[in-house]
Amino acid sequence: MDKFMERAVELAVKNVQEGGQPYGAVIVKDGKIVAEGVNTLHKTFDVSGHAELLAIRELQQEVKSDDLSAYTMYASGRPCEMCQTAMYFAGLTDIYYCQTLEEAIEAGFPEDSCMTKEDLEHLQQSMKQLPLGTDMTNPLKLWAHLHLK
Amino acid sequence: MDKFMERAVELAVKNVQEGGQPYGAVIVKDGKIVAEGVNTLHKTFDVSGHAELLAIRELQQEVKSDDLSAYTMYASGRPCEMCQTAMYFAGLTDIYYCQTLEEAIEAGFPEDSCMTKEDLEHLQQSMKQLPLGTDMTNPLKLWAHLHLK
Repeated sequence: MDKFMERAVELAVKNVQEGGQPYGAVIVKDGKIVAEGVNTLHKTFDVSGHAELLAIRELQQEVKSDDLSAYTMYASGRPCEMCQTAMYFAGLTDIYYCQTLEEAIEAGFPEDSCMTKEDLEHLQQSMKQLPLGTDMTNPLKLWAHLHLK
Repeated sequence: MDKFMERAVELAVKNVQEGGQPYGAVIVKDGKIVAEGVNTLHKTFDVSGHAELLAIRELQQEVKSDDLSAYTMYASGRPCEMCQTAMYFAGLTDIYYCQTLEEAIEAGFPEDSCMTKEDLEHLQQSMKQLPLGTDMTNPLKLWAHLHLK
């Protein structure tokens, strides 16, 4: 197995041994690990405490850039849509994962800790749109006015 | 217009005036605003600095719970999939938004700061799976062994 994925899986195992969830991630550049993360949901009330997102945040702060397009992500579990979207915005497109969502469900992971494609679609369909009042400043247009001369 | 959405839009306008992106969010319970957030991408290198996610994190830490199912989200812009997924995991399903992704693109927002359904699908299709080595501890099964007796 790839040594970087081995490390991500090792982090996941260690996190379970410490009372956490079975997820670890490493970010790699030029053959070196530059950031690591594990799932921290057992430690803090913070829905964003996923291994991949924490590794991304650590690295962005370290390199003082939002752009991680030169990096590769190795995640022990298939990244959820939260982490996928974060990777998209960070320009991080070279992504490897090991264990699948199906494996998580098969192992007995609580259903509400996994999100299927249908779950996301259901949530999207349930979101309700309220149009902007005609008397209100339009934030998008104000932004465009200030930034797109 | 709904007073809670008015506040979310007001936060977005204020954030633009302070150099930020046009996104604000408030979380409501029992007719009261209990958390607010604005997009902080202009201030910190942190891809997760979206209005909705920051409001969620603030509230989870305040109420010391991951479960926000009793709350309602008002976001000035349509929540991205990162924030949608965070809401799903937090059990937050009562969601209102004002401005659409199409409005953002029409206003001239940079393409890579918006993510379409196709962008997400493309990223998902490009993710590569590496199976677990037979000699390695399986993190998911270890978790199940410890937690599902």
